[in-house]
Parts: sequence; C-alpha cells; structure tokens
Amino acid sequence: MATDAQQACFEAGIKFGSLYHQFAGTPVSPSSTRSLEAAMAESIENQPFCESVTVAIRDDRVADAIDHENDYTELTGSLMDVEMRIEHEGVTVHTRMTMTDGYPLMEIVSIGDD
Amino acid sequence: MATDAQQACFEAGIKFGSLYHQFAGTPVSPSSTRSLEAAMAESIENQPFCESVTVAIRDDRVADAIDHENDYTELTGSLMDVEMRIEHEGVTVHTRMTMTDGYPLMEIVSIGDD
Amino acid sequence: MATDAQQACFEAGIKFGSLYHQFAGTPVSPSSTRSLEAAMAESIENQPFCESVTVAIRDDRVADAIDHENDYTELTGSLMDVEMRIEHEGVTVHTRMTMTDGYPLMEIVSIGDD
Amino acid sequence: MATDAQQACFEAGIKFGSLYHQFAGTPVSPSSTRSLEAAMAESIENQPFCESVTVAIRDDRVADAIDHENDYTELTGSLMDVEMRIEHEGVTVHTRMTMTDGYPLMEIVSIGDD
Repeated sequence: MATDAQQACFEAGIKFGSLYHQFAGTPVSPSSTRSLEAAMAESIENQPFCESVTVAIRDDRVADAIDHENDYTELTGSLMDVEMRIEHEGVTVHTRMTMTDGYPLMEIVSIGDD
Repeated sequence: MATDAQQACFEAGIKFGSLYHQFAGTPVSPSSTRSLEAAMAESIENQPFCESVTVAIRDDRVADAIDHENDYTELTGSLMDVEMRIEHEGVTVHTRMTMTDGYPLMEIVSIGDD
Repeated sequence: MATDAQQACFEAGIKFGSLYHQFAGTPVSPSSTRSLEAAMAESIENQPFCESVTVAIRDDRVADAIDHENDYTELTGSLMDVEMRIEHEGVTVHTRMTMTDGYPLMEIVSIGDD
Repeated sequence: MATDAQQACFEAGIKFGSLYHQFAGTPVSPSSTRSLEAAMAESIENQPFCESVTVAIRDDRVADAIDHENDYTELTGSLMDVEMRIEHEGVTVHTRMTMTDGYPLMEIVSIGDD
C-alpha cells in the first residue's frame, strides 16, 4: 500500500525517534562525548535498513550547558547534530537533525534511488 | 523535496521509535499495565502531528513473562500492541505494531487524505 | 558484610536512579502530567523492597518550560518532586528528590526500624 | 542523619539504577559491544562520587540472544557484568551486577575506608 519511498521514510523516522529517546538524558561531559557518539551511531546502525549514522556531540555546547555546581549535563537534542542514511528496497533516504531557530529539527534531506 | 505523504510517514516513524525506546525497559506487572498504557499514549500524543495513540499492554503476556523469582518484568515490544494516527499537511497515516511471526513489527497500515 | 541499613540505602538508591533515567526525556505537557505521575509511581513500585512512590510533576514548571514553538517539553528532574519508601529486612528508608539551590537533589530523609 | 557509609551506599545504588535504565533497550550486536561498554562506563563516571565503572557486555550471550530473523538484540541485564567503585566522604563502596541463579543481581561487594 505504501510506496517504497514512503516505507523508507517511515523507517528513517523510526531510527531518529529511537536514537533520540534511547539516549536523551545520558550524563555527558566534554571528556565523554567521543565514546557516546560512537555508541549512539553503532547501536542504531544495528537496526534494519540503517546504513550509516553520524553523531556529533558539540563539546562547546556541552561545556556551556554545564554549570558551576556539576561537572556534567544530560544529553538533549540541542547538544548534537545527527545525520543518517537509510536504504530500503532501492530507495535511499538521507536525514539529519540540526539546530534550527533554536530547536533541534529532524528532517528529510533527500530521497532517491540508490 | 519530500512529498507530504513521505513527510507524514517520516513523522509517523519518529513517533514509533520514540515510544518504543522511551519506555522499553520500564518495570511492569499486571497491576501496573493500565497506568503505563495511559502514560505512553498521552506522552507521545504531545509530539507534533500525532493525533492519536493507543497502547494495549497484554496482561496475559506480562504474566507469562514474569517468573517465580520476581513479581514484574521489563517492557518490550512483544508485550504490547500499538496503533497511531499521524496527520501532516492533510495526509493521515495509520500505523501499528503487532506481533508478526514472533516479532513486534512496526508497519504502515494506510496513508490517505484527511 | 553490609548492614541491613546500608543494604536498604543501596536499594533506595537503585530505585531513584531507575525512576530518573527510565523516564527522563519523556514528552510532557500540563495535560499529560497526571498519567505520567501514575505510571512512574506504579512502575517503580514493582521493584523489590519498594513500598511506596509518590511523583508530583509540577504543572506550573512544565508550563514555564514550554516555549511558544512547541506544546510540550521533555521531563527532567527540575520539573518534579519525588518521595519513596523502601523497606528491606526490617529497615525503612525514606528518600526524596526536590529542587535545592536550583538543582534536583536526591537525598535520604530518614532511616529507621519499621 | 544517615552515616557516611549509608550515604555512600545510597549513591552507589543511584549509579546502578541510572546505568541500567538509561541503557536497557539499546540495540546491540557483537560488532557494537565495545563502543557501548565504553559509553556506559564513561557516562556514569560523570555522576558525583562515581570513581570507576567497568561494563563487560558478553559477546557470546549477545550472539545467543540474536535469532535468525534479526542481526541484533536489545540490551538487558542478562547480557552484561558491571563493577563500580563509589567514593563518598572517605568511604569506598564496591558494587557489581552479575548473573546469579539466572537473574542479574546488583549487590554491594564491600564497604570500607579509603
């Protein structure tokens, strides 16, 4: 009923919601950003049709979010940029999450044949 | 670039991934299924374009998953059925998750004009 | 090796960490606070030795955390007060989380015999 | 009111509950165990009084938990062993989680002066 492209977009959305809500709230500091990025990318790449995930947690934003009382903060969408490539039945969907007008926006970048 | 229907499918996927990974692992027993169902539905309905969420945690499956040493288990996809309705730019997408061949399968049921 | 009171404090800590990190990041609005409070309390009460959990998500703080672009925010410790009673081997531990000096502080309120 | 040792045990429990419920449900396969272990340990070490965390996700148990339909499973306590060292006001608490009688058991190993 759904086209291959619609199905690929559905799968792409699943991966984004999964990544965000699995890891939101994780304690993070500038010294632990690299390991968290790697784990987020590799864990979501396990999911079906998920060919590539890149997570960039911004050290400067993490540092800014840490106040004088603590040495860490909790991961939220505003601290990271994410890109993903989903492939499903010959359709490739690129998605990303970046800060847009002060909010982390999940969006489709392109949909195309392989 | 994406059509309204493709965008609606992307949004529908986001909601499914969010619901699953926010609540997977929650301690659950037959006495707490109703409150967890309500919280899951109402929390995800807060998300943009999400018009309706129905969560049915199966008491019998929860009871079967609890062994003699504990009084509870952890929520997984195999313990619940979920239906959602997403509306985006005049397109309505119905999705569901049900056990299929022994696995919880997230799928698009229909895509249509309002 | 650990005394009953030390063991009870360990168990009390487990419940607090579980509650916080299971539910942090959940989408919440003033219209969904009651169902989320109920689910949080009932789910954690499933855990061993956890006799009572009370969660009060503050509607006013939730409303303040919501900006004009969205209709919801994500649950964090600053939006709620929590009280718990853990009982282990005849020792009762009361704990709570409240905002203290601008931070959500998890603390032991009392330890005593039943 | 609580002794330093009781307070240290409370803090030790918080870390265990946090680690478990932040990461339970994460997609994992034998190819992504190392990055997930590192992220779990480094993120929880950010928390106050948490001096050291070691997470060992057992590749053989992960492989056994993966069935023929999927290439991954979801992280649960049965797939990993965890050790932690918490230090609070001169008291050191060692804790661990290992499979005991078929269940992942969180326990205090020792409590002592530094």
